[in-house]
Amino acid sequence: MSDFVQSLERGLAVIRAFDGDHPEMTLSDVARVTGLTRAAARRFLLTLVDLGYMRTDGRLFTLRPKVLELGYSYLSSLGLPDVAQPHLEKLAGEVHESCSVSVLDGPDIVYVARVPTKRIMKVMIEIGTRFPAHATSMGRVMLAAQDNLDDFLATTTLTALTDRTITDPAELKSELSRVRAQGWSMVDEELEHGLRSIAAPIRNKGKVIAAINISTHVSRPIESVHADLVPPLLATAEAISGDLGLS
Amino acid sequence: MSDFVQSLERGLAVIRAFDGDHPEMTLSDVARVTGLTRAAARRFLLTLVDLGYMRTDGRLFTLRPKVLELGYSYLSSLGLPDVAQPHLEKLAGEVHESCSVSVLDGPDIVYVARVPTKRIMKVMIEIGTRFPAHATSMGRVMLAAQDNLDDFLATTTLTALTDRTITDPAELKSELSRVRAQGWSMVDEELEHGLRSIAAPIRNKGKVIAAINISTHVSRPIESVHADLVPPLLATAEAISGDLGLS
Repeated sequence: MSDFVQSLERGLAVIRAFDGDHPEMTLSDVARVTGLTRAAARRFLLTLVDLGYMRTDGRLFTLRPKVLELGYSYLSSLGLPDVAQPHLEKLAGEVHESCSVSVLDGPDIVYVARVPTKRIMKVMIEIGTRFPAHATSMGRVMLAAQDNLDDFLATTTLTALTDRTITDPAELKSELSRVRAQGWSMVDEELEHGLRSIAAPIRNKGKVIAAINISTHVSRPIESVHADLVPPLLATAEAISGDLGLS
Repeated sequence: MSDFVQSLERGLAVIRAFDGDHPEMTLSDVARVTGLTRAAARRFLLTLVDLGYMRTDGRLFTLRPKVLELGYSYLSSLGLPDVAQPHLEKLAGEVHESCSVSVLDGPDIVYVARVPTKRIMKVMIEIGTRFPAHATSMGRVMLAAQDNLDDFLATTTLTALTDRTITDPAELKSELSRVRAQGWSMVDEELEHGLRSIAAPIRNKGKVIAAINISTHVSRPIESVHADLVPPLLATAEAISGDLGLS
């Protein structure tokens, strides 16, 4: 007997078939989007209706808010956003720049908390957003703390996101050594033109488990980043790490 | 063949077994918490690892951030939080009180966007929180717009959450008529002592699909609620409804 439960894969694919472009779908739509037979799509949809994750008027299917609880299993198990959020709010208020917390997941960083300066859009959707770790300040402080960095460098393609992204493994390794010694990281227009970001590690009982950043525009002089942003960033990372140690 | 896919139910139960109290579990822990056999728990865990929703060091299992994407399928399919968030931020800034948007799900309201006044905690976790619709201002404006209100009243137990909660179906029905005519709802210490809340309906092409509220303390005089909170609440509900109509 195989260890892989295909029904689970298919059921999760049915949930994920719904999004902003497909908020409601018929049985035929779901079959087409997921590549399932109509009979299989029907069984998964009816099971999800039965479990309270979906509703139907007999023809159209839509997700129900219980689906949210799946996502929050992760956030709740992580513990981190709860602990980090008040510190993040305070930091963003102090420096008047957007601040975020992310974790490393394979070659990516994933946002788990964020306070934008201009609260104008997509606040919820931003949580869960991924960026390639090698081109971000948060990714660099987390990579700098990895034991298996050579594995990462051997298996990850260092994609150029701008003409300034470090794409040479040896150059990245040397930059990560510098970051490790310095205790924080700056990335300058390597993820996106115009964007400058600094990050520091968040530790739980000594182990780096996440990173916090402040992102700003390149129009802010480097001297101001050093004088005005780095000290509160490091203090906030310490404060979050301290709170995590207590919990 | 049954239409119910038990493997999907069990796989989702394995994801939900993880939370703040159970951030990492062994195979035996998962089997115990979910009531599955060890063999079954093992197959579901390995499938989730394979699909990128879980990781393991060989002994302990933890959720990975991909689980977040399931929750965001719902938020993204709803569209609403994206549209409502900037209006909610503006309203909270104007009235200096916490503001929320919720949808009706069975007998409950479920928060899908929220701006607390004092941004001190649980910002992410609050999304997805449920309260009984009958005892909340947002629930009342949404119930007031239901076609099948008699079904709701016949099948829902109107639990008393404080000594002021309306628990008599006839009394609730008459209050809902009043709310429908007035266009907004006030609930005074029926959900929690000390809490006063007002809500207005959010419409998409005429149909009530959500509600927005301002919650405040009973120490704010009713006259101030009428003069200072109701007008911006109604204006914000209109603005969100207008934006939804455009999208």
